[in-house]
Amino acid sequence: MWKPDRTSGQSLFQQIADDMERRISYGEFPPGSLLPSERKLAEQLEVNRSTVVLAYEQLRALGLIESQTGSGTRVSRFKWGVSSKHTPNWNRYVEGGNFLPNLPFLRRIREVLQKGTAIIDFASGELASDLAPNEEIRLILKEQPFIEHLGYVNPQGYVPLRETLVSYLEQYRSIQATESSILITSGSQQSLYLITQCLLSPGDAVAIEDPSYCYSLPMFQSAGLRLFRLPVDDKGIKPEDVRALYKKHRIRMVFINPNFQNPTGAVFDPVRRTQLLDLAAELGIPIVEDDPFSLTAYEGTPPAPLKSLDQHGSVIYIGSLSKIAASGLRIGWMVAPHSVVSRLADARQQMDFGLSVVPQRIAVQFLESPYVEPHLDRLRTSLLFKRDLLIGALEKELGDDVTFTVPQGGLHLWCKIIPEVNDSKLLEEAIKRGIIFVPGSVYGSDSGYVRFTFARPSQEDIVPGIAKFAEALRAVLV
Amino acid sequence: MWKPDRTSGQSLFQQIADDMERRISYGEFPPGSLLPSERKLAEQLEVNRSTVVLAYEQLRALGLIESQTGSGTRVSRFKWGVSSKHTPNWNRYVEGGNFLPNLPFLRRIREVLQKGTAIIDFASGELASDLAPNEEIRLILKEQPFIEHLGYVNPQGYVPLRETLVSYLEQYRSIQATESSILITSGSQQSLYLITQCLLSPGDAVAIEDPSYCYSLPMFQSAGLRLFRLPVDDKGIKPEDVRALYKKHRIRMVFINPNFQNPTGAVFDPVRRTQLLDLAAELGIPIVEDDPFSLTAYEGTPPAPLKSLDQHGSVIYIGSLSKIAASGLRIGWMVAPHSVVSRLADARQQMDFGLSVVPQRIAVQFLESPYVEPHLDRLRTSLLFKRDLLIGALEKELGDDVTFTVPQGGLHLWCKIIPEVNDSKLLEEAIKRGIIFVPGSVYGSDSGYVRFTFARPSQEDIVPGIAKFAEALRAVLV
Repeated sequence: MWKPDRTSGQSLFQQIADDMERRISYGEFPPGSLLPSERKLAEQLEVNRSTVVLAYEQLRALGLIESQTGSGTRVSRFKWGVSSKHTPNWNRYVEGGNFLPNLPFLRRIREVLQKGTAIIDFASGELASDLAPNEEIRLILKEQPFIEHLGYVNPQGYVPLRETLVSYLEQYRSIQATESSILITSGSQQSLYLITQCLLSPGDAVAIEDPSYCYSLPMFQSAGLRLFRLPVDDKGIKPEDVRALYKKHRIRMVFINPNFQNPTGAVFDPVRRTQLLDLAAELGIPIVEDDPFSLTAYEGTPPAPLKSLDQHGSVIYIGSLSKIAASGLRIGWMVAPHSVVSRLADARQQMDFGLSVVPQRIAVQFLESPYVEPHLDRLRTSLLFKRDLLIGALEKELGDDVTFTVPQGGLHLWCKIIPEVNDSKLLEEAIKRGIIFVPGSVYGSDSGYVRFTFARPSQEDIVPGIAKFAEALRAVLV
Repeated sequence: MWKPDRTSGQSLFQQIADDMERRISYGEFPPGSLLPSERKLAEQLEVNRSTVVLAYEQLRALGLIESQTGSGTRVSRFKWGVSSKHTPNWNRYVEGGNFLPNLPFLRRIREVLQKGTAIIDFASGELASDLAPNEEIRLILKEQPFIEHLGYVNPQGYVPLRETLVSYLEQYRSIQATESSILITSGSQQSLYLITQCLLSPGDAVAIEDPSYCYSLPMFQSAGLRLFRLPVDDKGIKPEDVRALYKKHRIRMVFINPNFQNPTGAVFDPVRRTQLLDLAAELGIPIVEDDPFSLTAYEGTPPAPLKSLDQHGSVIYIGSLSKIAASGLRIGWMVAPHSVVSRLADARQQMDFGLSVVPQRIAVQFLESPYVEPHLDRLRTSLLFKRDLLIGALEKELGDDVTFTVPQGGLHLWCKIIPEVNDSKLLEEAIKRGIIFVPGSVYGSDSGYVRFTFARPSQEDIVPGIAKFAEALRAVLV
């Protein structure tokens, strides 16, 4: 963010007035738009409020802005005087388009996190900095600097990465993929986006888990899809529910996260898995299997994916490095019939002209390095330790007010708040106290849940964070 | 691509049969789909044709595939015998969706380039490997390895990169942007995608240059937009055409590439620029200014962008590193009102959850390094040299059969072929002879043009490449 320069000869208020004038004339603040309050701007720019008052006074004198008691300061609608010139009505453009905005809770959470003030973050669904293989990647980059041409890459993804993934998928997920059936994406999010945009048509019915991550994604509604819910219990979804939805609504696709499901942590039952695959083959419905968490299994071998049992080619498999290595690499993949992969690669070309070769190259180097196993061991140990810290704190601070199933893998704990609370009030009270989480209603139709991502806050912050959460809860219950 | 392992104890044909069986059962080749011919597969796998014949015979014996004289070998539709199990009808899914496929010419070109056989490439709109600052980036990565957390980045883009771009845009493009009005994208393609998807609604009318890069993009039609053309002459588009389109069709946005336009190389006339900006302000229509080529201006200072003259906030400015540094970084940017930037950042979050921090960090390091000016100098000199090689070759080999305006910047030459030719035949004859280009009809409504990207082929290849093109042209004219 721009700040006035205290070492320049020019007065601070003048610098601020000039900057605002420039931002107004560039359309950053269109005519009629609300400007930050004097107090807020002073805070942002780290100056006295009186300095901003002076700057705003100058702009008012120029006729650029106008203030009305009670309704704040706005850019003048007539800033171009008698001229008929005007800025495009950006608001009309911003409100148009096919694409729905993110859920209000998620935007609110992002807004708080972007402020950069210290907050204990149980909301971001990612690993803490010290759980990512940053040091390993630094070593790799130092030892094996880039030699490739930084040109456009194959739209299906960098070939060496697809080759590496063939071995990786076989070794870690028992999936026998071929290089031509793999598409590299910018994480699972892009895989889901491509599937919903390019394989389904507006009006199509699809089934998603309730609760689930998919529930939080306006992309399904943006694509015009009709969503039907498959309730998740301790053993995952019930295949008979899929059959019922097919009969009633002719669902065209099923989205499922079978291992350490986000947010519940549930592991899909082995018997139900076979039933679901049989059903998919019987009805000819594709299953989209999202599998980001399996390798975090705290103890023992993670359950095999549906794709490894998929004898009829019904499963589109989605994976990524986001939850087991680094979300900032933005590397994911999809295993699907070649005709599907090639269609989606063609469409993706239109959207972003493919992925940067740089993170793809780093992913190859990391996956081929001897660091993978030790990294995963360390990750699992730390996640288990953090999970136990969280559970201990919840039991100590909230005792009978909460209930949850202990997850055996993944980054999240799905916590039922027993007393009836207002999601929104609880979130705001928590933010006030310096902690943040995702209200359960973001993920499903049931209210009274909270998703705590214990992977994200530091070890030291988990116990005090839950103490603050308990305070927030008590404040709401009063 | 998988190849049989000659050192394994297993016979080659058995390995091939096993691999095909796996690919069929995984849905890579769905029931009824055509398999590669025995000859083609033998070539791909580098084995004798008789080995493939044996493998296919085994699969036929298993009932997995069936061959019919004249119609090739297909996966059996009844491969699961009397069972009612079946693979999803992937073709129906692939043909569904909102998203139109790329133009057939572009898919054909990509297919040829992906084969990896030696071909002189006048088609890919990017720099040759030796024109990119690969060495500089290697040095930067060696000297300043990563230290940041590889976590999710700000949806509007990595903050240090936005800060760097504020100075870059001021220094090189006379644009006074603020960090909050910049959105980092995966190149201009993603900027255009976000604008067409999120700021416009199906049925909206927009104006694009004819010929232009936009013309090649099914993304406009995929978004349901009605496209109206603004003919480009040596001085760019005519502002009165914009007014006429507004009157007739209420166009809601104008897309323009004013400097060294792709494909014509035209520079938008200064008087017309002012007229267009006045008109945009009068009508309240936003202008999307795509400015990828300016810094390639072979001699002298490049023309300033429209955005630098934009007093009414009518212009959304799009830039990138793709055509002046490296397309494989996938780094672009947009300067727009904050409300627009923040809406598009929110939507982009839904599509790919933001850009990898790695290329963004490299872009900061490169733009802040002392390498930028020397790199740009070297780039301009090389492009000028290559342009002149191309012009010399065209004059020598094709003389009176072609005509063109000599570009003063950019990567392309837009060449009119005087005798009447069939685009498709000319392209295929050229491919046969080992060269490839983009037929002009991809970019506009006029036929008989060819776009030669002289930036991409090596210096040594330009003259022989045009000799081959001349041969192809003569073959078509016979």
